[in-house]
Amino acid sequence: MKELRIFCPATIANVACGFDVLGLCLDHIGDEMVVRKTGSGQVTISRIEGQDLPLEAANNVAGVSAMALLKALGSKQGFDMEIHKKIKPGSGIGSSAASAAGAVFAINRLLGEPFTLNELIPFAMEGEKLASGALHADNVAPALLGGFSLVRSYDPLDVIRLHTPGQLYATIIHPQIEVKTADARSVLKHSVPLKKAIAQWGNVGGLVSGLYTEDYDLIGRSLHDGIVEPLRSLLIPRFDQVKQASAEAGALGSGISGSGPSIFALSKGEHTAKKVAEAMTQVYADSGVAFDVHVSGISHEGVRPTMSGTP
Amino acid sequence: MKELRIFCPATIANVACGFDVLGLCLDHIGDEMVVRKTGSGQVTISRIEGQDLPLEAANNVAGVSAMALLKALGSKQGFDMEIHKKIKPGSGIGSSAASAAGAVFAINRLLGEPFTLNELIPFAMEGEKLASGALHADNVAPALLGGFSLVRSYDPLDVIRLHTPGQLYATIIHPQIEVKTADARSVLKHSVPLKKAIAQWGNVGGLVSGLYTEDYDLIGRSLHDGIVEPLRSLLIPRFDQVKQASAEAGALGSGISGSGPSIFALSKGEHTAKKVAEAMTQVYADSGVAFDVHVSGISHEGVRPTMSGTP
Repeated sequence: MKELRIFCPATIANVACGFDVLGLCLDHIGDEMVVRKTGSGQVTISRIEGQDLPLEAANNVAGVSAMALLKALGSKQGFDMEIHKKIKPGSGIGSSAASAAGAVFAINRLLGEPFTLNELIPFAMEGEKLASGALHADNVAPALLGGFSLVRSYDPLDVIRLHTPGQLYATIIHPQIEVKTADARSVLKHSVPLKKAIAQWGNVGGLVSGLYTEDYDLIGRSLHDGIVEPLRSLLIPRFDQVKQASAEAGALGSGISGSGPSIFALSKGEHTAKKVAEAMTQVYADSGVAFDVHVSGISHEGVRPTMSGTP
Repeated sequence: MKELRIFCPATIANVACGFDVLGLCLDHIGDEMVVRKTGSGQVTISRIEGQDLPLEAANNVAGVSAMALLKALGSKQGFDMEIHKKIKPGSGIGSSAASAAGAVFAINRLLGEPFTLNELIPFAMEGEKLASGALHADNVAPALLGGFSLVRSYDPLDVIRLHTPGQLYATIIHPQIEVKTADARSVLKHSVPLKKAIAQWGNVGGLVSGLYTEDYDLIGRSLHDGIVEPLRSLLIPRFDQVKQASAEAGALGSGISGSGPSIFALSKGEHTAKKVAEAMTQVYADSGVAFDVHVSGISHEGVRPTMSGTP
């Protein structure tokens, strides 16, 4: 195999209570990439469609991730990538992670899978670092593994694929304002009250338990973030109204997607998720802020080969 | 039914990463109680064997818990309790919780079960408050529900029974020194570094996932506490040596049981748990501190009626 076309899914990191550790993989929303073996001995990016992003591999998350993988293997194989960007950078649904995960997935596959999906995560994290300045895995892990994933530990890296109930749907509203990951990090405090930390790990435990037992009510009760959301939500217009409208429309819970500005809600069943989309749309309709709203299942698979002719 | 004899199990609260939220129920280690309906219209404690504890109901955790239950029901029914105390108060394996849970379990059963086990937890917490000064549920919840339990939230109270793998065994060493719960709380800091809090909720998520998937290695990898253990372990002689010896003997992980001074380790299989007991014993043998060592399975049932003639 010389060429691979892949779908690179968008992801929701943090998932309310799980700041820096939880993430989930969306279905249908994502980029496409074509990755080819070349004789150049280098990683090149010949084309990026849909967004204005750097073509130099060393300045592009896909390029950096690819080079990290090849360096670990000691491989001199050259690869060229075409990226058809559909996820808007800075939207908070894992735009950089999709490119990072896609690059390492495709190259690994084209080289005969020397690495497991879990082993690819650290290479994709190198790409993430270029985008956000920090080595984080809560987007690249679900982008590679699919479903819900938990970064139990960063040092050593230990990523767990969690059980993902089949009727869980996400609704996402992306207000088109700029919140850079680095800025969203700078509003955080270096220490947190012990009492709030205890509430947070109670909710993480509850959410993980709810995923395994497919207890949608428990999942909903656990979707609270008393630590990061109160600070970051100030950067997102009408955040509280979106949250309230989502709850009234039947969502299990909601929160900031990654570092924002997208807001996500989880619902049981696509029908409810669509009602939540309508409710979110109404909140933003007269806001003067441009926005997109998406409804998506949770994909049980991460990056995957696609059959489409021209991506 | 006028009288009920029950077994009131010991419990391990916190379970390393789950400070204030996780607990597990031990098998075989516990108190016995006999609870009888009386015509006195009051809660009385006619006898306490094994320990020197207050007989006045208002000063005894069992009495306070019983009265909280009866008050909620508006019941004028009288009850007398005999408590055969085998768990040493102050040992850190839920002595007060066993009495609190036992009292409310037996009275609820004798009254025809007006409450579910989950609904009994708040009454038992009133008894716990008398003992420790704080309303906590991480011992009374597993004492009532059995297995592993998670206090997802204290306000409102939301307690989840988690799946408990069958081959999990606990080893406990109880150094006979006094560490009062209130003192153990006073060494805690009111705020924690965000980075440590993230590591902690990653481990809580990992432990809960490991319990559901019966992944003993993951359970072991998740048994870390970077927040409370470094402070409280200073109050426990030879803590680090016990931890190291337990790991070398094959334990999955270890930590402080509740607020100490008992130290627990979890192992896969009784054989390993017994080897851990030997290793713990060796560490303490020449310490000059009196100690007990116990090995126990995790009980899938909490407080339960017992058939024994005289407890």
